[in-house]
Amino acid sequence: MRRDASELVGRALAGDRAGIAKLISLVEQGGEGADAAVARLFPHTGRAYTIGITGAPGSGKSSLTDKLIGRMRAGGDEVGVLAIDPTSPFTGGAILGDRVRMQDHATDEGVYIRSMATRGHLGGLSLATPQAVRILDAAGKPWILIETVGVGQVEVEVAGAADTTIVVVNPGWGDAVQANKAGLMEIADLFVVNKADRDGAADTVRDLNAMLDFSGELEWRPRILQTVATTGQGIDELWSAINEHRAFLEGGERLKARRDARLRDEVQRIVRARLEQQVVQRAGADRFDKLLAQVSRRELDPYAAADELLGE
Amino acid sequence: MRRDASELVGRALAGDRAGIAKLISLVEQGGEGADAAVARLFPHTGRAYTIGITGAPGSGKSSLTDKLIGRMRAGGDEVGVLAIDPTSPFTGGAILGDRVRMQDHATDEGVYIRSMATRGHLGGLSLATPQAVRILDAAGKPWILIETVGVGQVEVEVAGAADTTIVVVNPGWGDAVQANKAGLMEIADLFVVNKADRDGAADTVRDLNAMLDFSGELEWRPRILQTVATTGQGIDELWSAINEHRAFLEGGERLKARRDARLRDEVQRIVRARLEQQVVQRAGADRFDKLLAQVSRRELDPYAAADELLGE
Repeated sequence: MRRDASELVGRALAGDRAGIAKLISLVEQGGEGADAAVARLFPHTGRAYTIGITGAPGSGKSSLTDKLIGRMRAGGDEVGVLAIDPTSPFTGGAILGDRVRMQDHATDEGVYIRSMATRGHLGGLSLATPQAVRILDAAGKPWILIETVGVGQVEVEVAGAADTTIVVVNPGWGDAVQANKAGLMEIADLFVVNKADRDGAADTVRDLNAMLDFSGELEWRPRILQTVATTGQGIDELWSAINEHRAFLEGGERLKARRDARLRDEVQRIVRARLEQQVVQRAGADRFDKLLAQVSRRELDPYAAADELLGE
Repeated sequence: MRRDASELVGRALAGDRAGIAKLISLVEQGGEGADAAVARLFPHTGRAYTIGITGAPGSGKSSLTDKLIGRMRAGGDEVGVLAIDPTSPFTGGAILGDRVRMQDHATDEGVYIRSMATRGHLGGLSLATPQAVRILDAAGKPWILIETVGVGQVEVEVAGAADTTIVVVNPGWGDAVQANKAGLMEIADLFVVNKADRDGAADTVRDLNAMLDFSGELEWRPRILQTVATTGQGIDELWSAINEHRAFLEGGERLKARRDARLRDEVQRIVRARLEQQVVQRAGADRFDKLLAQVSRRELDPYAAADELLGE
């Protein structure tokens, strides 16, 4: 490991903000150095509790995050926030938008807010995010909020890989349908119907309940909460529900099992990403498309195409 | 290619039943020889229309298959049937059960019925089944029915990789819920509520419609049909719906696009299976579990575990 990376590890462990920021930037950019640095932090992780917050743009995720930060800070705990934006490869560090939306905490030293895109990390944000979470965890943040910008596949995957996952929808028929289509039913531990002072909130609660009924019997039936994040209405109940879900997971080894399953999944994804990287390096995307066109015309069978890709 | 495999290819192309049977057995057993043989058949494929039929055990899939075979034979067409059973590694050739359930056609030379398990094919049944379909396709069967024994993950995947996929449920609330849980909503082109003379058929139709409503707008909204396969009730309507869906796909390049997407998916799965095979060969399953236990105890980070698996 390079000497400055080694120094960054020490600074991050001490909770130094600039050290944390540089290390997360390294992870975003990707490369062996970043992963080697985080490997040094790994033995110091596993203490933070992670909360994923996902939902369509404009549903009020950042306002809810802001209010949750307030609850955590009221208890004296430090908080790390990662805003995941796969659509913005040039975001770089924390963007102005986050600071505006979470303005109550912009000057609070106990809160670390950071936007994340990916510019090169192997496996993209679904592998870079757990690395960034580890940096905040090792830096001593007991709560880490992972907020997504939208509900794309990566964002759903990343938000779903948290201890507690919150899915935010708004009143109206369309949102429950969209949530189902986006694969949010599978990852939600809590549903929040935000902007619940608008027409149709009760309908949305009913729709979500109907969709949960269709999911059959569940060990944990996701709670459905109604909030108005801008006024703070319903935040007490949301905070209680988060802690109720945490207590549920911490009972009977469920949290450990869930985290072990995530680690297993991550190792498999790293292996797969490295192997696919090798294949792509040998045969570019153009070559893959050309081979598939040949398969489609029956000039080449699928196994021969795979062999060509594998360079046999 | 071995000389006898080459001879089998010629016999299968001529529609010889014993040649087809031996070639499918080769594909089940796996190995380079089988895939090389099917590669020889590949230019002669793409003419057959495939229909996947899936649903819980006892829902009446085989009786429906039997009735559909009758329709196809009434038009003078030959039919190939693959019964997919991932739970039975020792099934081998056609089992007695199939012949009993599809007894109307057991002695009809225009119908080829075969159970399929997998004993060694790389990637299991999800890669072996398309190879078996190719054998029947090259042998000149214009219709190929792929019937699953249950609704496990492999069976859903295999049945979903057909031109038209039929999901069979029975009257009663539970079945629609189970269908949703098993991931059948995503793959169904047609729903058949079989045993529709029993109580609750209308409820099941309503439940399925409600679940389809939650799927948002669809280019093709799956038809919902009611049948009593044992008496033949509703089979006319089912046959019409199959042909309606086929006409839909054959309009506007949809069928080609769907088949190209399947081929793309297959090539990627072959590449992945071969790469993962290499990893497993280097490090057995025991080694993988031991490494994960170390990761869980924070003795090893996920990237180091992946590197060890990759033998770096």
